[in-house]
Amino acid sequence: MGKEITSRAEDYSQWYLDLVKKADLAENSDVRGCMVIKPYGYSIWEKMQQGLDQMFKDTGHTNAYFPLFVPKSMFEAEEKNAEGFAKECAIVTHYRLKSDPAQKGKLMVDPEARLEEELVVRPTSEAIIWSTYKKWIQSYRDLPILINQWANVVRWEMRTRLFLRTAEFLWQEGHTAHATRAEAVAETEQMLHVYADFAENFMALPVYKGRKSESERFPGAVDTYCIEAMMQDGKALQAGTSHFLGQNFADAFDVQFTSKEGKLEKVWGTSWGVSTRLMGALIMAHSDDDGLILPPKLAPIHVVIVPIFKNEEELARISEKVNGLVKDLRALGLSVKFDNRDTHKPGFKFAEYEMRGVPVRLAIGPRDLENGTVEMARRDTKEKKVVKLGDVAALIRPLLDEIQQNIYQRALNFRNEMTTRVDSYEQMKNVLDTKGGFVLAHWDGTAQTEAAIKEETKATIRCIPLDAPEEKGVCVYSGQPSVQRVLFARAY
Amino acid sequence: MGKEITSRAEDYSQWYLDLVKKADLAENSDVRGCMVIKPYGYSIWEKMQQGLDQMFKDTGHTNAYFPLFVPKSMFEAEEKNAEGFAKECAIVTHYRLKSDPAQKGKLMVDPEARLEEELVVRPTSEAIIWSTYKKWIQSYRDLPILINQWANVVRWEMRTRLFLRTAEFLWQEGHTAHATRAEAVAETEQMLHVYADFAENFMALPVYKGRKSESERFPGAVDTYCIEAMMQDGKALQAGTSHFLGQNFADAFDVQFTSKEGKLEKVWGTSWGVSTRLMGALIMAHSDDDGLILPPKLAPIHVVIVPIFKNEEELARISEKVNGLVKDLRALGLSVKFDNRDTHKPGFKFAEYEMRGVPVRLAIGPRDLENGTVEMARRDTKEKKVVKLGDVAALIRPLLDEIQQNIYQRALNFRNEMTTRVDSYEQMKNVLDTKGGFVLAHWDGTAQTEAAIKEETKATIRCIPLDAPEEKGVCVYSGQPSVQRVLFARAY
Repeated sequence: MGKEITSRAEDYSQWYLDLVKKADLAENSDVRGCMVIKPYGYSIWEKMQQGLDQMFKDTGHTNAYFPLFVPKSMFEAEEKNAEGFAKECAIVTHYRLKSDPAQKGKLMVDPEARLEEELVVRPTSEAIIWSTYKKWIQSYRDLPILINQWANVVRWEMRTRLFLRTAEFLWQEGHTAHATRAEAVAETEQMLHVYADFAENFMALPVYKGRKSESERFPGAVDTYCIEAMMQDGKALQAGTSHFLGQNFADAFDVQFTSKEGKLEKVWGTSWGVSTRLMGALIMAHSDDDGLILPPKLAPIHVVIVPIFKNEEELARISEKVNGLVKDLRALGLSVKFDNRDTHKPGFKFAEYEMRGVPVRLAIGPRDLENGTVEMARRDTKEKKVVKLGDVAALIRPLLDEIQQNIYQRALNFRNEMTTRVDSYEQMKNVLDTKGGFVLAHWDGTAQTEAAIKEETKATIRCIPLDAPEEKGVCVYSGQPSVQRVLFARAY
Repeated sequence: MGKEITSRAEDYSQWYLDLVKKADLAENSDVRGCMVIKPYGYSIWEKMQQGLDQMFKDTGHTNAYFPLFVPKSMFEAEEKNAEGFAKECAIVTHYRLKSDPAQKGKLMVDPEARLEEELVVRPTSEAIIWSTYKKWIQSYRDLPILINQWANVVRWEMRTRLFLRTAEFLWQEGHTAHATRAEAVAETEQMLHVYADFAENFMALPVYKGRKSESERFPGAVDTYCIEAMMQDGKALQAGTSHFLGQNFADAFDVQFTSKEGKLEKVWGTSWGVSTRLMGALIMAHSDDDGLILPPKLAPIHVVIVPIFKNEEELARISEKVNGLVKDLRALGLSVKFDNRDTHKPGFKFAEYEMRGVPVRLAIGPRDLENGTVEMARRDTKEKKVVKLGDVAALIRPLLDEIQQNIYQRALNFRNEMTTRVDSYEQMKNVLDTKGGFVLAHWDGTAQTEAAIKEETKATIRCIPLDAPEEKGVCVYSGQPSVQRVLFARAY
């Protein structure tokens, strides 16, 4: 291996693509815009799924599964939602192929197998789910419904980028139904906090929590909450969204319930999702020019052990010691790999596991055997030290915790450095052009100003922060009064 | 609740549909042929997934993810596979909707957004995966590839039935690539045994293992192995298949590798899958006229506790005792539900949990409090007994094991009773018409005889059993010589 990827300083965008490839995470497929998630990349996604799934279950949600296809008439029922996704929908129009009489061995779409009604491949599932909830909800006793779905969705993107923006992606989508507005708002906020908690505690990724401006809202939502993260190139990345849908889908699908008081009322809804895009965020937030850096909580392999040997006899003596250690570490619930291949040199292996972001590497050679030691190296700081073999089992958990904490702290420091308060439009443009990152600026609350700033600077309002103090000021663009700073950035 | 479902004796097929509905497992959606898997049904599927996934990982496989769509030209590369699925493919032809000028608020497929090449929604993923493997395989060092994928697939079925046959279904599909024929055959057989192991040890479902006749083979396979189970109505159900693909997909996608000896050779392949169809098998094999019967290893709730009380004060006293018990049982790793709703009577709850197949029910009332007892009822046999509250924690694991074993034994006895050796065609027809089940009969090995028997009796060759003794005989239909009995049945 060796330094096989472009450096971040040279070309951040190419660095990302090189890393995704060299760390064996994903690749473009022969299907336009669709990726193949390779085994190592998928094993990180599985860790994410497990962490999130447990958090969803701990907050009272259950999983279910709804159809991939949405009939066009159902899809268009909630007009804003339909309009928002219409331009990027894959459409099934036929249900059969037949032999092509003009070309032996080839197939053609059978024109006689045209569907009466076209089917949209779900870009999101509000329509199909609310048309189902209508059948499930009659009384207040049927509420709340707290369901999540793990699924693939398709949005026909023109410019794609592995994990960050692909035509098909994997995600989870929560869809809940409630008797009251207050309960639905509380659910929306709860799930935002779950996402922030996951980002910070599993992904080691600090996030700002906030609400989207009207123009950035999910189509069909009354309010969209989001978490926003900072990448190393100074661009923001939206890492998860939670939508308060009001009664929009209840209206579109006529979903009503009889209240405790016997009154017919409309149901309130939420939806919330994160996707394989989180993989992109994870990679871009922490990694370096040698490859991936993974927080231990999401690492498929916690510890790799590399033997240093000249011949089979040396390997045998090392293996004897290592086998006991592997057993001890696995007993601690850790995922351990002993790479005893004789086809690759230790240096190659070191570089390979650095590329793959394995948090801790242990190297052990003949001299270590004599001394009863092992070299312990951590991926995040590249620090190495020689420790007693007998101490490894006791040291490893605290070290993994320290790595998890260090990666988070480093990302937090960076994010904080990359958040700048600006008080004039000149200053804002200057910061965006030179330093990048988030800028906290006053905004007059109008869509015109937002659009003008976006047009001129390519920066968008990432969110209106949830926990920002009220602070009177004037809009950096229009000079009109403002009551709170909002978070701008150029974004993925 | 109460006896709300059709009895098996009255109408087995309606019993199944009633049960699926009343036990809240799944329902038909508004999308033709596609089902909604409801939370309780999905939680059983999750248990299946976990069990299978662990077995796949224990046998060296990793998960990955490949695209939903397959370009038509790629799909048709392996001709037999393409031909086999062509008639049931959903086809994406367009990638955009637009406002319908003729109907305000409606959308139409944008004729200008026609794809240059149509995309097939995967009915199975050999084509897309082997076109990818081509890029991954150069040398013998790249082999074997042992990958599994959890995914949705679409096969446009005309007559659908919840879980058993739906246009979209969930499944796993393993796809492996090997350097030698022997290794690929061994993998094919290994995965068949994994499926049989899962069916017997998790689903409590005895299966026959065997090979399909040529006409029942997976399109594109050289050999198809399968497991076959017996349902309570005497019909067989194919519960899983494992295919030896030979070099068919290597041929179609030109996948070659350089061997250790430096020779260019073609890669050998396998694929294997089980689907949400297993849910149908699970339901139909064990359940009764009161509802679902679940083997404890797949039960989302192992133990339900129903309090019997007249007022809040009684409930409070019962809850005090129950809370400790719940804690003890959860500490054993069991899933326990304490149903303290005051909106439903105990009898209603009893029927509800019987319908849902919860293996063990504990009921506790004021008299039990006085006596320090609890009523313990098992779902499989309906036996009840009063036991000491303090003994429950020690009794429950052995009881669950006994239930798991009993359900399996009952299904095994039934399957064995329903397997009949026949030595004439008259006898075969008679058994099929009166008793049903499997018949073991001599067959001359020709496709004509197989087709004639199918035409006349609706019975198909389910498999050529793997472990059947060689036994000379004559074909029940043609009188031609035969070396082994094969397994016929009418099937789902």
